Amino acid sequence: MKRVFAAVALFGCAVCAQAGAPVKPADVVHYRQSVMELIGWNFGPLAAMTKGKTAWDAKEFAMHAERIRALSTQAIDGFAHGAASGGVETDAKADIWNNLDDFHAKLDDFMTEAKALDETARGGDEAKMKEQFHKTAETCKACHDKYKAS
Amino acid sequence: MKRVFAAVALFGCAVCAQAGAPVKPADVVHYRQSVMELIGWNFGPLAAMTKGKTAWDAKEFAMHAERIRALSTQAIDGFAHGAASGGVETDAKADIWNNLDDFHAKLDDFMTEAKALDETARGGDEAKMKEQFHKTAETCKACHDKYKAS
Repeated sequence: MKRVFAAVALFGCAVCAQAGAPVKPADVVHYRQSVMELIGWNFGPLAAMTKGKTAWDAKEFAMHAERIRALSTQAIDGFAHGAASGGVETDAKADIWNNLDDFHAKLDDFMTEAKALDETARGGDEAKMKEQFHKTAETCKACHDKYKAS
Repeated sequence: MKRVFAAVALFGCAVCAQAGAPVKPADVVHYRQSVMELIGWNFGPLAAMTKGKTAWDAKEFAMHAERIRALSTQAIDGFAHGAASGGVETDAKADIWNNLDDFHAKLDDFMTEAKALDETARGGDEAKMKEQFHKTAETCKACHDKYKAS
């Protein structure tokens, strides 16, 4: 947080880190890690419900699905500046930037399934929602298996 | 990231940290810091455009405004588990949890203005968009001045 809040304070607003300044590699890594953190945060309750570890709640499922869909479109910005990490620990393999077409295809798969997850969740059919959760999770795995270090 | 990815691997998906397990204070802090990181990331280009540091781009402005609106509704979850931080450095003052009604009112103000920012941006009127950006930024400042340590 300090990396963001210490950067600039335009309009008295302390959360404007990139106000016209070049984006540094470390900022990009922090950004993409934050996107993944939020996707994970919202995936958790869906996984728990789908596995029967928590009570089924279609409304809560739909809320998280909507968030995941929105977040899925924000991930790509976190990979737009190459493999440099500015010294920040990252699990993103350099292979990403050596196979950008494949990586983008995998990210597209995630966005497609996340969109379908949101749309399915709006329908409220429990079986379909669980099935679509699995499909979406598979797109996470497909990308992580190839491009994530751990 | 490792804190998320190491947690569980349901369905082979490595981003399912909360699958039925109790949420730890450190997880909540990381979550809220990630929300703030993404809000800051999306605020940056709006601040730059509004200040004239980068070229005006109504479409880009609207994209970020839509994201900020969506993210504004996700912030509250990051404060739902009290002042404990699990040892993670945090700028969130304990006063938040001693003044929850006031804090929630300030968060509501942010959500209201972020919603208006999105709606205004859809209209495409540059002057109105800039004005609404200032109004939204003021709600950041009002909360940070009182409840953020630095």
